[in-house]
Parts: sequence; structure tokens; C-alpha cells
Amino acid sequence: MKTIKNPPTKEWASICKRATLNQANLEKKVITILEDVKQNKDEALIRYGALFDGVELSSIQVTNEEITLAKTLISKELQEAIQLAKSNIERFHTSQKEQETKVETTKGVSCWRRSVAIEKVGLYIPGGTAPLFSTILMLGIPAKIAGCKEIVLCTPPNKEGKINPAILYTASLVGVTRIFKVGGAQAIGAMAYGTETIPNVYKILGPGNQYVTKAKELVQQEGIAIDMPAGPSEVLVVADESSNTEFVAADLLSQAEHGIDSQVVLTATDENTINRVIKELEKQLSSLERKEIASKALENSFSVVLNSIEECIEFSNVYAPEHLIIASSKASDYIEKITNAGSVFLGNYSCESAGDYASGTNHTLPTNGYAKNYSGVSLDSFIKKITFQEITKEGIVNIGNAIELMAEAEGLQAHKNAVSVRLKEVNNV
Amino acid sequence: MKTIKNPPTKEWASICKRATLNQANLEKKVITILEDVKQNKDEALIRYGALFDGVELSSIQVTNEEITLAKTLISKELQEAIQLAKSNIERFHTSQKEQETKVETTKGVSCWRRSVAIEKVGLYIPGGTAPLFSTILMLGIPAKIAGCKEIVLCTPPNKEGKINPAILYTASLVGVTRIFKVGGAQAIGAMAYGTETIPNVYKILGPGNQYVTKAKELVQQEGIAIDMPAGPSEVLVVADESSNTEFVAADLLSQAEHGIDSQVVLTATDENTINRVIKELEKQLSSLERKEIASKALENSFSVVLNSIEECIEFSNVYAPEHLIIASSKASDYIEKITNAGSVFLGNYSCESAGDYASGTNHTLPTNGYAKNYSGVSLDSFIKKITFQEITKEGIVNIGNAIELMAEAEGLQAHKNAVSVRLKEVNNV
Repeated sequence: MKTIKNPPTKEWASICKRATLNQANLEKKVITILEDVKQNKDEALIRYGALFDGVELSSIQVTNEEITLAKTLISKELQEAIQLAKSNIERFHTSQKEQETKVETTKGVSCWRRSVAIEKVGLYIPGGTAPLFSTILMLGIPAKIAGCKEIVLCTPPNKEGKINPAILYTASLVGVTRIFKVGGAQAIGAMAYGTETIPNVYKILGPGNQYVTKAKELVQQEGIAIDMPAGPSEVLVVADESSNTEFVAADLLSQAEHGIDSQVVLTATDENTINRVIKELEKQLSSLERKEIASKALENSFSVVLNSIEECIEFSNVYAPEHLIIASSKASDYIEKITNAGSVFLGNYSCESAGDYASGTNHTLPTNGYAKNYSGVSLDSFIKKITFQEITKEGIVNIGNAIELMAEAEGLQAHKNAVSVRLKEVNNV
Repeated sequence: MKTIKNPPTKEWASICKRATLNQANLEKKVITILEDVKQNKDEALIRYGALFDGVELSSIQVTNEEITLAKTLISKELQEAIQLAKSNIERFHTSQKEQETKVETTKGVSCWRRSVAIEKVGLYIPGGTAPLFSTILMLGIPAKIAGCKEIVLCTPPNKEGKINPAILYTASLVGVTRIFKVGGAQAIGAMAYGTETIPNVYKILGPGNQYVTKAKELVQQEGIAIDMPAGPSEVLVVADESSNTEFVAADLLSQAEHGIDSQVVLTATDENTINRVIKELEKQLSSLERKEIASKALENSFSVVLNSIEECIEFSNVYAPEHLIIASSKASDYIEKITNAGSVFLGNYSCESAGDYASGTNHTLPTNGYAKNYSGVSLDSFIKKITFQEITKEGIVNIGNAIELMAEAEGLQAHKNAVSVRLKEVNNV
């Protein structure tokens, strides 16, 4: 991890630039898969399952028996941990429900918004060595609170055609309506277009590899909503003399172990703090199971010495980190200055792991600098806000003339006329 | 306008299908323009201005003198109408501000969200015969309330290199920070990548032709957020015996005059109502300036006879209209049943024109069935919600063990360790 000392402000943007992937052939491959799924539906899914997951499935939907069996395979302790996390995530996401308030903008003109669930949503959960059941909590719980009627989950099976029991247990716990043993771009295609077995959905959420990400991007152009653009995970830590270097190093490593393309950034007001953290990093790294991944990630990472905590926050606003940890006893003083971040962790005991699993906040967050223009997943991600208006006779009299004048100035006579016929009727009665 | 009588439910989806555009060569052309703007910046903008707008500009930014002059060219009446609309739109969009509430999900674990403005946004306003200053109200007002620091507006100039004074007046009134005489896909490229004169922005909003729409789609893939996917404008009216057929016809025509690809749908419980509206349509159409456009739009349109108002609403939910007018004295009874719509107009005096201009609701709405998964523009469109958490020693003790168990089950040891080092410290002190 290289250290940059007091870089001039004009260099910040280029320091903050993320690595870009070469995706030359990716799009072509993914388009082929999506077209295949659109045409051949379940048959294509089973074919790709044999090809990519190494298993020929006779049925792609998870059965109730499999779900019941899964529960028996999860330890009581893990079940309780998942339930505690669920309860916190539920509490925080329920608090995001919006009160419906009618606003009388002019006498006789009432306007309001109603939050209505997106009827059908699809969740994608990647396969691989670790079962990401925590992401099911983060997506399934707000979907359920929103009132989505169909919550579909796709995840690739292992070579025995099975799904990890922690995935099945959690999906069932949060109220996923149907689970399918399908992974990759083909799963995104299935949820976008529908097959004989998998219903099409209106929005697809969840992480995935570059094929999944590209497939989400492509179906978005066909009108399927997605959660947000994707990129490698990242954290920026602001440290000062009040930071606990052991904690800071542990937080940086918890980010670094995600993948070799993860990035961790450490900013501090003195080089000494940085050097102590780097020393601590080396110490903790050696005993990690995923140390190879973490050390590769650290190679892409950097630390920056800046003049003040304020300047660290300004730098962070340019970087726009997915996770921002302010590891300072005065963390709360800086809240107002934060303009770009996905999720912020204040003080020495608010570790990123807490938000990843169990504090209640969502862990599906904008990476790659997208915190400048995107929010993380929340209850909002599963609803539309429909506007309503009710205008009385008095109301149309109050605003009718303004509408007529504006419609006329825009050259839209029929727009004007829709008001005129009403004003005429009101005046005649 | 053809009438469909009591179609079986299974045919609704195909009746509701929108026409699709053939966009084969469009993407290539737009990519060329975007690449050109990325490379050649202002020079490319001036070149395209000469080519597409027929004017060689010496400077693309609108000057303060031009803005001052514009005000003198707008009638007092129109200025007052625009100000009335502004006041209503401001009131409704200000009401969308969210109260920040801390939620203690577990003792010692506090989570909350802060709404923070997207720092730089770009508004696109199309050119053409009519100056769409109302759209500036709909985009500029919430941007200003949100607190966006840079609000850029691009709109094509006329052959004299001028912008319609109503556009300049409104843009200045709502607080647009800079106005540029650039239109088409090149304007989208300029706001996405930045040029010597035009700053790059993080989100681009506003309507446009198919080039603009495609350019927005393409820059979205490069990380620039956009308001929503676009499509032709549309309205669905639910009518019953209590409807005023003159009003209904006027509303349908106000939608139909938008463009030949607009679609209007009339649903009613009796054929008689439909026939009376169609007769009234013909009567009103003949005196419209834009009657050619409106009658072409009516050719693509249809009416449906259904068994009950409830069934009309169900049909509407399948269609997912941008605008839904319930032209019934009992309109309020059906609010709960509406699941997919952009903006809903209740009762006989709530005409779509009101929402288009001055009632306070936003007129930038999801078309083409996207009301199933997208909301219209609102204050939300100009902010990100950043999550915060603050965990005390007591808090990490309360949830730490659950995090450790979950992290371990996901095979993420460093995630677990970030908690363990804290629990160890808390227990030692």
C-alpha cells in the first residue's frame, strides 16, 4: 500500500480514479446468452447449468422439501444470529416507510404521493465458495416490507445440483416466494424475459460477476429496472490520533478480503498513524485464511496524508467511497461535511462488518464512485411513488387561467382547451 | 380509435403492448457523436450546431445580457402564470423532504439516513416549435430544493443562434446555474464528459428525441445516472356514467396532440359512454391547430368496454399508464386498487393539463409501461440517501456475536476479526 503525502487538490480526482475493466468480448457473449434464454427458455437454462455449473438439473425450482431439510442443517446459533440481523434490518427498513401527506398547493388543489410496491422483483445471489445469505436479508427484507407480491431468487447450484442450506434457510425466513437453481447471465435473462418455470420480473437486484453485471446492464435497456451499476467493493477510512490502529487495520482487511479488485483507502492527518496501521495490517494479514486475496487488494490500495480531518473528508467526497469509516472519537462533528458516500460508520466501534451483517443498514451500496449519484438499496428500491391529485371546481378556477396561458405559450392548444371546457362549465352552473 | 369489447383477461397484456421502435442504426450514429464530443469537446459541439441547428455559434454559453433581455420579452401575464406554477410545484416538492430519524435497532446501535443533493445535474430541454419551459419548472425546482450546486441546462438554439425567451426566463427564475445552446446527443455527451465550457454532471434528466434518449441510455452505462427510460407519452381514462364526456374528450386530445406516437386509452363500463366520447372527440378535433398530429395519435389508440370500474382499474394496472384519469364522481373509492401508474387525476376537474403545468405534481413521468417499476421525477431524483451508523461499546457487545457467526458462515474471517478485536478490547477494559 503506497502512501501519498499531501497531494495538491487538483490531483485528487486522478488519485481517486478506479481501475477500469476491459470488457471487449464480454458484451457479445452475454447478448448471446440472453438471446438464447429469450428463445429457448428453460431448455437454455438447463443447458447452461450443465455447461457452467457442471450439473444437469431435472428441475430448476427448489422444492419445499429441500427448504425444510435446509433448516435442519443450520446450527441453532447461526439461526439465531440470522434472526437477530433480520430483526434489526426490519426495524431500520420499516422506518423508511413514508407517511402519505396531502398537500393543498392552492385552495382546491390537493396533491400527494402513495408508495406502491413493485409487484414482481428478482434477487440474484452469486454462487462460489461462500454462501452470501446476508445479501438475501438485505434484499428480501425490504422487498417484503414494501409488499412485493412475487420475490424470485436465482442462485447457481453446486455440482450436486444443491443450494447451500444457509441460502435456502434465509430465503425462506425472509419470505422469498420462489427459489431457482440458475446462475450467471442466464439467470438475469430468465428473470427479465420469463421462462416456462421462472416468472419475468420488473426489477432485478443483487451482486454478481462481470457476466451478471453486464446482463443486468443490457436488460435495463429493455426496460427492466436494476438496483444500481456495479463495481468492486471499497472502503475509505479517516483516521486521527484517537483511532485504534488495531481496529482500523482489521476494518481495512475486512474490505480487502472481498476480492483482489477491492480497494481500501486510508486517510490520516499524520504519517505516523498511517505507518502504525500499515505495521498492524502486516501483522493481522499473516493469520488470515484469505490472505492472498487481501494482499493483492492491498497492492491496489493507498493511503494519503492530509492536513486536517476536514481535508480528509473533502478527499473522501471526491473519492465517493462505498463505505466510509470515520475512526475518530469526534466522528459526529464531520457528518455535515460528507456529501458523497454509500454508508458511513462513525467512531471506533462502528465497524463495516456491523453494517455488512446485522446493524440494520443495507449493505448493497454504490461502489466505483457511484455514491456521487446513486443511493444504496433501501425500501425505496422496491416501491414506486405514484402521484395523485384531486382538484375541485374552486381549484380549477384558481389555477385554470395560469394553465391556459402556459399551454398557449407552449403551443399546446388542446392542453389549454381541457381547462377551458371546465372553466366554461363552472361559470355556467 | 377502435373499440374492444370485454376482452378476456389473458388478452390484456397483448392489448397493452406498446409499439416498438426500430433502432437498428440509431445506436451507431449516437456512439459516433458521443465519441466525437468526448474527444473534441467544444469544437465538436460547434460543428454539430452548424450541422444540426443550422447556426455557427461563436459562444455556446448564454450570457447574462441574453437572460436580462428575455425577461422583457415575456408578457406580465405569462410571467405571473409561471410564478403561480412555480409556487405550487415548490410547495409540493418541498413537502417531499424527508425527516431525518435515528433508529436504535438494538440498544447501542443507531442507524439513520441523510438526504444529500447530487452535486451536479444536467437538464435537457428539447427545441422545436414549442418552448417547453414547463419542463424547466419540473426539473429545476426540485433540483434547487434538493440543493444541487451546479444545475446545467442544454437546449438547442434556433437558426439565429437564439433560445426562446420563455426558456431563458424560466431557467433563470428557478435557479439554473448555466445555460448552453447545445442540443441533441451532443448535449448529452457534453454534460456526461464535460468540455472546455460545459461542466460534466453526475445525473442527466429531461425529455428528448430518439437521439437524446439513446445518448442518455449509453452514458448511463458509463456511470452517469439518468431520470428514467423514455417512451411516447400516454393517458388512460376510466369513465363511467358520472363522467363529463366533453371533459374526457378534451383530456384525450390534450394527450393526443403531443405527438403522432402518443397513445390514449379510454376504458368504460358501457359502450354508450365510449360512443359519446368518440363523437365529442371528432367535434373538438376539427378546431385544433395540431389536429393532424392528434388524429394520427388517435389512430394508434383504443377504447375498451369492461364490466366494472374495478375491472377498468385492473386493466389500467396491466397497461401501467403514465397518466391515469379517473373521470368519475366516485374516483376516490378506487385509489387503493391502483398499483401501476405514473400520476393519477381524480374526478372531473382534475385534468391532465393541471398536472402538466401548475397543480404542483411533476410532469416527468414513466411512460411505455415503466410505471410498473419506475417513479416519476421528484425531489428524490436529485438526492442520494446516505446511511449512517453509530455503534457504542454496548452496541457492539449486543450484536457482535451474531456478526461473528454470520461472517464465519460466509467464510469471511477478516469480517469476523473486525468485530473480535473490538469485543476483546471491550472485555479487557
